[in-house]
Amino acid sequence: MDDVKVIEIKKSIFEDNDRDADNLRADLKRRGVFLLNLMSSPGSGKTTTLIQTINRIKDQVRVAVMEADIDSNVDAVKIREATGIPSIQLHTGGMCHLDAEMTRQGLDNVPLEDTDLVILENVGNLVCPAEFDTGAVKNAMILSVPEGHDKPLKYPLMFSICDVVVINKMDVLPYFDFDLEKCREYVRLRNPKAQVIPICAKTGEGVDAFAQWLLQEINNWKN
Amino acid sequence: MDDVKVIEIKKSIFEDNDRDADNLRADLKRRGVFLLNLMSSPGSGKTTTLIQTINRIKDQVRVAVMEADIDSNVDAVKIREATGIPSIQLHTGGMCHLDAEMTRQGLDNVPLEDTDLVILENVGNLVCPAEFDTGAVKNAMILSVPEGHDKPLKYPLMFSICDVVVINKMDVLPYFDFDLEKCREYVRLRNPKAQVIPICAKTGEGVDAFAQWLLQEINNWKN
Repeated sequence: MDDVKVIEIKKSIFEDNDRDADNLRADLKRRGVFLLNLMSSPGSGKTTTLIQTINRIKDQVRVAVMEADIDSNVDAVKIREATGIPSIQLHTGGMCHLDAEMTRQGLDNVPLEDTDLVILENVGNLVCPAEFDTGAVKNAMILSVPEGHDKPLKYPLMFSICDVVVINKMDVLPYFDFDLEKCREYVRLRNPKAQVIPICAKTGEGVDAFAQWLLQEINNWKN
Repeated sequence: MDDVKVIEIKKSIFEDNDRDADNLRADLKRRGVFLLNLMSSPGSGKTTTLIQTINRIKDQVRVAVMEADIDSNVDAVKIREATGIPSIQLHTGGMCHLDAEMTRQGLDNVPLEDTDLVILENVGNLVCPAEFDTGAVKNAMILSVPEGHDKPLKYPLMFSICDVVVINKMDVLPYFDFDLEKCREYVRLRNPKAQVIPICAKTGEGVDAFAQWLLQEINNWKN
């Protein structure tokens, strides 16, 4: 089942990304489509978290996923097989992030009239994706326990633009020097309004809280 | 002991990075200084690996470290406290990688006449640093077990330009679905010549092999 749709994203030629992002957000608002931008380091568990989350909300909202990756199709196939929802793969051709225009290229291939929520899984990278507004209504990021609780100190911009920080791989906490309270404190330092939600995507523990946060945000935005 | 030297790196104004990198390599060759470029995702254990490695080789070669980071000084302080060797912090001001000209700005602050080996700890990112030759003689990268064995499939360029791939956090192998043989196979796919060295930087296990690889490379390059 390797036949997911693959979109080769072209480099943006427009120069004002903030304006493009605002326009895209307004377009999506008119069409009633909520866009969530999900970011993280490589290997923090974005795809597994998405699968668990989607399976909890897909009876309440119509979800579609865009998987951005430099090259492979692994994630889009995985998502579709595990959730049954529409999932397309965006190839960035080596580019390290998506901006609003690139996001729009992806959205052109999603059946938006049948969709309430599009989740964009951004390129695995804590630096560049933070610099470009994709047009999303909300930004989420996943930090996994093995990466360490000091990451908000080292990647300040990423943490300051995220509305929610999901702490994944809580099951391996005993094997790592990860201090959850320190992590919360460092996140607050960057962004006092960001929510912190500890989960274990492998077992599903805590994912309900993230799913609830997401449904609540969609609800707030619609009304 | 927070008084490490901090260099604010400026964006390069030169356009031909490959030429700059070749020139820098030639300069360093004349001065007898070996430059190693060390890359990885955020939180894979670069700094801990460096400390363990440096403590094994510092009696045989004179080492200096340049820690590139977007913002904090945590790593340079840690390296100096744990090894006693000269260590400076390069602030990239949000930039996601170092190129050859930026590396040279850092090297201008290292006492090269008293140094055999400079290790550049690049920004934690598997995408952008792979695209810019820093002028290093060799490229090394660290992949940690929690990130997953599929990373060579998802970040092909990074794995294709590295001379050695260190697999860190081998102590937590029982708690993750990480297949070392598959990882070796995927690395070979990207780069048949790359060495794969499993280690645990926390306990020091396997670090001897990486230290030996490095000393051997310095020796080959000098003769």
